[in-house]
Amino acid sequence: MPTIPETIAGILKSSPDALIVCHLGPDGDCLGGGLALALACEAVGVRATVGSADGVPEAYAVLPGASRIITAPPADTRFSVGVAVECSTLDRAGNFADALQRSRTLINIDHHLSNAGYGNIVYWDTSAAAVGEQVHEILGAMGVPLTAAIAQCLLTAIVTDTGSFRFPNTTPKTLRLAADLMDLGASVHAVVERVYETRTPGSLRLTGAALRELTLSADGRIAWTVVTPEMLQKTGALTEDTTGLVGMLRQIRGVKVALLFELTPAGVRVGIRSRDAVRSNVIAETFGGGGHKGAAGFTAQGELDDVIARTLAEAEKELRAHA
Amino acid sequence: MPTIPETIAGILKSSPDALIVCHLGPDGDCLGGGLALALACEAVGVRATVGSADGVPEAYAVLPGASRIITAPPADTRFSVGVAVECSTLDRAGNFADALQRSRTLINIDHHLSNAGYGNIVYWDTSAAAVGEQVHEILGAMGVPLTAAIAQCLLTAIVTDTGSFRFPNTTPKTLRLAADLMDLGASVHAVVERVYETRTPGSLRLTGAALRELTLSADGRIAWTVVTPEMLQKTGALTEDTTGLVGMLRQIRGVKVALLFELTPAGVRVGIRSRDAVRSNVIAETFGGGGHKGAAGFTAQGELDDVIARTLAEAEKELRAHA
Repeated sequence: MPTIPETIAGILKSSPDALIVCHLGPDGDCLGGGLALALACEAVGVRATVGSADGVPEAYAVLPGASRIITAPPADTRFSVGVAVECSTLDRAGNFADALQRSRTLINIDHHLSNAGYGNIVYWDTSAAAVGEQVHEILGAMGVPLTAAIAQCLLTAIVTDTGSFRFPNTTPKTLRLAADLMDLGASVHAVVERVYETRTPGSLRLTGAALRELTLSADGRIAWTVVTPEMLQKTGALTEDTTGLVGMLRQIRGVKVALLFELTPAGVRVGIRSRDAVRSNVIAETFGGGGHKGAAGFTAQGELDDVIARTLAEAEKELRAHA
Repeated sequence: MPTIPETIAGILKSSPDALIVCHLGPDGDCLGGGLALALACEAVGVRATVGSADGVPEAYAVLPGASRIITAPPADTRFSVGVAVECSTLDRAGNFADALQRSRTLINIDHHLSNAGYGNIVYWDTSAAAVGEQVHEILGAMGVPLTAAIAQCLLTAIVTDTGSFRFPNTTPKTLRLAADLMDLGASVHAVVERVYETRTPGSLRLTGAALRELTLSADGRIAWTVVTPEMLQKTGALTEDTTGLVGMLRQIRGVKVALLFELTPAGVRVGIRSRDAVRSNVIAETFGGGGHKGAAGFTAQGELDDVIARTLAEAEKELRAHA
């Protein structure tokens, strides 16, 4: 009996075309994995279309094939194969969800715990550090030679989804695959330079202003800070420049929950990061949000101070239950 | 003819004792590499003493054997073999320099460009991502089985000296060695948790205060900031809490040189990080300091403003030559 990667390889190779779709708010893993799969499809004569409803963040614009990524599905096209890349539900494909649903065969590739299991073929592997690792298995089954371009796409997927091998999802297999991809001409450093080293002065100044005012609660087990529109204006930062800030708060020794409160026109956006047994998603779900165990979020209406107080109370409740 | 690692292995195995010394301000590479070498010596019956004049930073206190590290050499002991680990000059061994010098055979293991070439046996390999890689070669030549403890020491060396595989010194060989060490029971995540995720609130507040005040010079190609004793006091941070700060400044898009000026009792300590062709060590050497191409430093006497002005001038000179 063929393995799932072999089954997917067989379906792709016998199809005239494929629609490969990244999730909303695309990251290096779905973009790198999706583009690598598209390049492999084309190597065996399959017309590949890559979609990303939210486009391509600047850090990934240099990925081979990134310029061909479309942000809306072509009208009236029914694809032979639809591939959802790292979309836990079909909704996560955004405006491509219908096109995927209408494809003759829908393939669902994911490594997240929360995948809903939709589609005709589900390739779900929570032991994979990145979808890029799963795509690599498919490419092997397709018998496609790994070019330097494919290698760079796969390495980008792996480096970004492992925090450059820092996260506990990194396995010896991950490191060996990364080494093989480097041998093919891919560069970890090139990914790092694009992803981690293209900050603006404003984003660093905002990070500084927010860190300087950090507060500890619950005997040092909660660290939190606030970002206001005035801080964005004063530092010349953009809303997206808060990325990574809440993760820095979690770096504090003894901190189990880190919280970032951002005052936005849509309400108070709350980012949560947690450690050990503490579940970020449980805190977020109380307020109608969601996420992973280690990282979650929600947006709440109401006064900033009130949202802070209610969130701290929920975080302390979760701490009592699980720390 | 035996290779250098084989020569070193032969010397160690035929010696009754060895003194293994880390450099001043020890990092994960010299501590991990030094301790791995000590464990291997003991496995073949060589009495090993590990010295670190500046002791062991808390992040590395969990390394196997770390509690046995001494901070001053035993009086009147002449060691059969002295091993300087990652000491570009013998001075970098601090108060162990004399004991190393007096040992019958002095072995110098380093991967820094600037090594002075002292000692009876010089194992100098600038292609090694970490001294840990060189120690691994020696251990292989010694025929010592790699235990989980040795593996954790070597992995700590590699992870810390590559910024968890982010720096361009990371090679496919580095990644494969890391994978092998994981197979032996070592954990990248354990290193990361200790090294990158045990910050104090004071260190983050200091980082914040310094980032908030960052300045750009030379059309955005130089980013710099200042840390004063008042800032340390106000944020509750320690001198060592500035680690990583200058690297954050280099993350700014377009920045080729990042500079951190710290006002200390010993003078103005200047940390330099650079990108692309710009050489940090050349800037540092103008002021009597040293380091790598990408990372260097020096301490200067004089008024802060004057040191800043002179350093910016030298950095601009290097930018004109190499950017």
